[in-house]
Amino acid sequence: MNGAESLLRTAAAAGLEVCFANPGTTEMPLVVALDAAPQLRAVLGLFEGVCTGAADGYGRMAGRPALTLLHCGPGFANGIANLHNARRARTPVVNLIGDHATWHAAADAPLASDIESLARPVSGWLRRASSGSRLASDGAHAIRAACTPPGQVASLIVPHDIQWCDAAQAAEPLAPPEAPRCDGTAIAAAVTALRAEGRAALLLGGAALADVGLRAAGRIARATRCTLIHDTFVARLERGSGLPRVERLPYFPEQARELLGGFQRLILVGARDPVAFFGYRDQPSRLAPPTLAVLELASAESDGVAALEALAEDLGAREAWADEDPGKRPDRPSGALSVGSLGQALAALQGEGAIVVDEAATSGIAYHAHARHAPRHTVLGLTGGAIGQGLPCAVGAAIACPQRKVIALQADGGAMYTLQSLWTAAREGLDIVAVICANRAYRILQVELARAGVSAPGPKAAALTALDSPALDWVALARGMGLPGVRTETADAFAAALERALAEPGPVLIEAVL
Amino acid sequence: MNGAESLLRTAAAAGLEVCFANPGTTEMPLVVALDAAPQLRAVLGLFEGVCTGAADGYGRMAGRPALTLLHCGPGFANGIANLHNARRARTPVVNLIGDHATWHAAADAPLASDIESLARPVSGWLRRASSGSRLASDGAHAIRAACTPPGQVASLIVPHDIQWCDAAQAAEPLAPPEAPRCDGTAIAAAVTALRAEGRAALLLGGAALADVGLRAAGRIARATRCTLIHDTFVARLERGSGLPRVERLPYFPEQARELLGGFQRLILVGARDPVAFFGYRDQPSRLAPPTLAVLELASAESDGVAALEALAEDLGAREAWADEDPGKRPDRPSGALSVGSLGQALAALQGEGAIVVDEAATSGIAYHAHARHAPRHTVLGLTGGAIGQGLPCAVGAAIACPQRKVIALQADGGAMYTLQSLWTAAREGLDIVAVICANRAYRILQVELARAGVSAPGPKAAALTALDSPALDWVALARGMGLPGVRTETADAFAAALERALAEPGPVLIEAVL
Repeated sequence: MNGAESLLRTAAAAGLEVCFANPGTTEMPLVVALDAAPQLRAVLGLFEGVCTGAADGYGRMAGRPALTLLHCGPGFANGIANLHNARRARTPVVNLIGDHATWHAAADAPLASDIESLARPVSGWLRRASSGSRLASDGAHAIRAACTPPGQVASLIVPHDIQWCDAAQAAEPLAPPEAPRCDGTAIAAAVTALRAEGRAALLLGGAALADVGLRAAGRIARATRCTLIHDTFVARLERGSGLPRVERLPYFPEQARELLGGFQRLILVGARDPVAFFGYRDQPSRLAPPTLAVLELASAESDGVAALEALAEDLGAREAWADEDPGKRPDRPSGALSVGSLGQALAALQGEGAIVVDEAATSGIAYHAHARHAPRHTVLGLTGGAIGQGLPCAVGAAIACPQRKVIALQADGGAMYTLQSLWTAAREGLDIVAVICANRAYRILQVELARAGVSAPGPKAAALTALDSPALDWVALARGMGLPGVRTETADAFAAALERALAEPGPVLIEAVL
Repeated sequence: MNGAESLLRTAAAAGLEVCFANPGTTEMPLVVALDAAPQLRAVLGLFEGVCTGAADGYGRMAGRPALTLLHCGPGFANGIANLHNARRARTPVVNLIGDHATWHAAADAPLASDIESLARPVSGWLRRASSGSRLASDGAHAIRAACTPPGQVASLIVPHDIQWCDAAQAAEPLAPPEAPRCDGTAIAAAVTALRAEGRAALLLGGAALADVGLRAAGRIARATRCTLIHDTFVARLERGSGLPRVERLPYFPEQARELLGGFQRLILVGARDPVAFFGYRDQPSRLAPPTLAVLELASAESDGVAALEALAEDLGAREAWADEDPGKRPDRPSGALSVGSLGQALAALQGEGAIVVDEAATSGIAYHAHARHAPRHTVLGLTGGAIGQGLPCAVGAAIACPQRKVIALQADGGAMYTLQSLWTAAREGLDIVAVICANRAYRILQVELARAGVSAPGPKAAALTALDSPALDWVALARGMGLPGVRTETADAFAAALERALAEPGPVLIEAVL
């Protein structure tokens, strides 16, 4: 057994099942060793950002890491943007980064670079393997690090000769530490805050947005009449009929501040004291107004679900949340295709258990309002703001959950960064409906120009935010990647195409011309 | 005038003309300021690797830097792979990297990351601007750094508030230092080496591969009967009829070693003591056999052209090189389309003054042999081994040289990394013929597997090197990006399509099914 085989057998023994790979010459021993680890599925991406984004989507849905297999510094660099998103999502990911043989490093060959410097900003754990016989142990430590709650990116650099070296055996899995439980003081403070005069809200993030956490939060909301809010960009949110109502913290700071200004106390559960996504002139970074008392029940690192359950218990909040305004699922829309009717159609038609990957930017806002009464579904958001995350994330989610329909609600601008994902979706036959919101602009930048007071941008500024010349033909792009596609220009046509796509196994692409 | 405007006016005053941009919210002041700098052309890329690769191609052809405009750490990270290539090519490039406002940094907002750590591995010069009034000076220093011979990547991080700050004026251009001239000792040693018994060769790199350097090297070769060799992967090589014959150092180390083994002395002119691209078991990093004496006439940083001219002078080598074996341009091929007939067709048909961007990997080898007798042309190679360089480099070369036809000889695997380049080519109406060598495989990895002794790869290893399921439809991909395309499956069809493409202004894509 060589080092590469010992490493991959270690990953398989730890329960890992998928390797998203875009290897090169320095990774050949690991490529060969994949065939010696039958538990590991190898999924090829034609660009590294596909692999890392897929690992992020997979980790969010599977709750355990996927491997990525990447080629030297430049190949790894192509995956950084989506690892940045994974880092912000607290997703467990294990990167295997090949490098030149140890004895070849001094030659400073063309592909040599400072991988550590590139990897450190996105890696919670980083190591360079230095011995074939210890490679299995390095792998076990990387997996343990990735699985340390709430999850993180672990990167293991594996020089070529270390992969070939003789190795004795795979390493036993190492149990990750448990998430710290929150202490009684924080719970008592939260009880006091929720029982005091005035309005209170829970700001939920991380695992608190999964089923059990939401239900505990729902009991607390019913008992105390507090409001539930979630981070603007969620790693993973369960939503839809039967689940407690959780408001989304608005993206723009003045709107977020207006929402938060309605409360006297904000209790953080797996969420940070909220800050603006970008800093705007004359607006502070922090979104909580000075009048709002902010206290932390559970940090992102600690067990937010247990904290919510303990808080509910101490409040005597045993009654399940019930929707006072049950509302109804929106009707299927007709007429013009717009951000509104697109969101309405999706909320009207999506099936039970869909996974909705939202990188729709401005085109997704209406959907969130409509989707509250849709059937139960899971939302995966753009946690780190690095666009090009949606399509790869959908690939990973579809591989993690082959029985569930994955809907990628995707802005056209963001889709272009990692459109190679479509090929992997076609190759693997993944059950994905990619809805491309084709407004043919970086609309958010047009909004930002206006917000900055630039009411009439010059021709260059205008051109840098416009994608309409030439217009991208998403149906042709899909065909080029081996995927069926359809263009829709009315709400009726979109709804009909969506209904067909949802009824059949994917993958398929729907271009929604907005 | 704000900081952003002072910065861009400084760039314009220094003679910069192009900004390859993929901006975000934090770069809005710079986007607005582009309209205040009429000398600067703004070219949008839909992925950052397009922008950085285009800046590389532009810099190689223009001999002066382009600006890139990139968004925060993750946006910059998407451009790293092609900056790695630019670093290895010694191309002057100036990156402007937007970041959060200084006062917003402490908030650790979602897009915040350690930009310095990401930028350092590819940047010869790196600075974070800290004052609006000094931003123009920062820009002048960045440009000076980029233009310091032989050229390098300079990265300036510009926080959002620094862009908006008031600024007095643009800064005067700063003259870069001149390249050191080589000393008489090195020239005298080279004279001795070339006059001694046995065979000698000059290994040429950098500016020595441009017209003047090549002609000086040709005089030396004629006078001393030495052989001229160039680096395997050239930043920029002038080639074709009338120019001295320069052999390419082979890619695989055993072949390179065989070539070098035929000499007693190797004189480096702007090239490094050659090393293997990858380290292979049982082969040293260094390619020069122990019997070969290696001496340096000029380092990559010094003035290799002046050194060659001085050497020619000291040798009394005044007669121009003349081809002893003038050979002839190959005929237009017929029959099956293969790597051989593809290269033959291109060499047979390319017009005077073409710029050939070679990222064809295994599909380009035959072309290099055929092209020696083609009309004068320029070759731009994959200097850093980070694939996804060819199409963006062609975009940049076409913008630098609008009067010349650019031919991107491009492997399909590498093309997928930055296929968004096709959109920029369409949008800007660039005169590019993109020849996609569609062997539907990572052929080099199949070769590497065989070289590693894996004669029968397992199904996973085989699948990770095969791009045929589904086959990419490059004509559809081109159409999706707004570009005409044609698929060719015989040498005759390819030659006919190429002839048409060369006769008309581009852009156009030809898929050559191999």
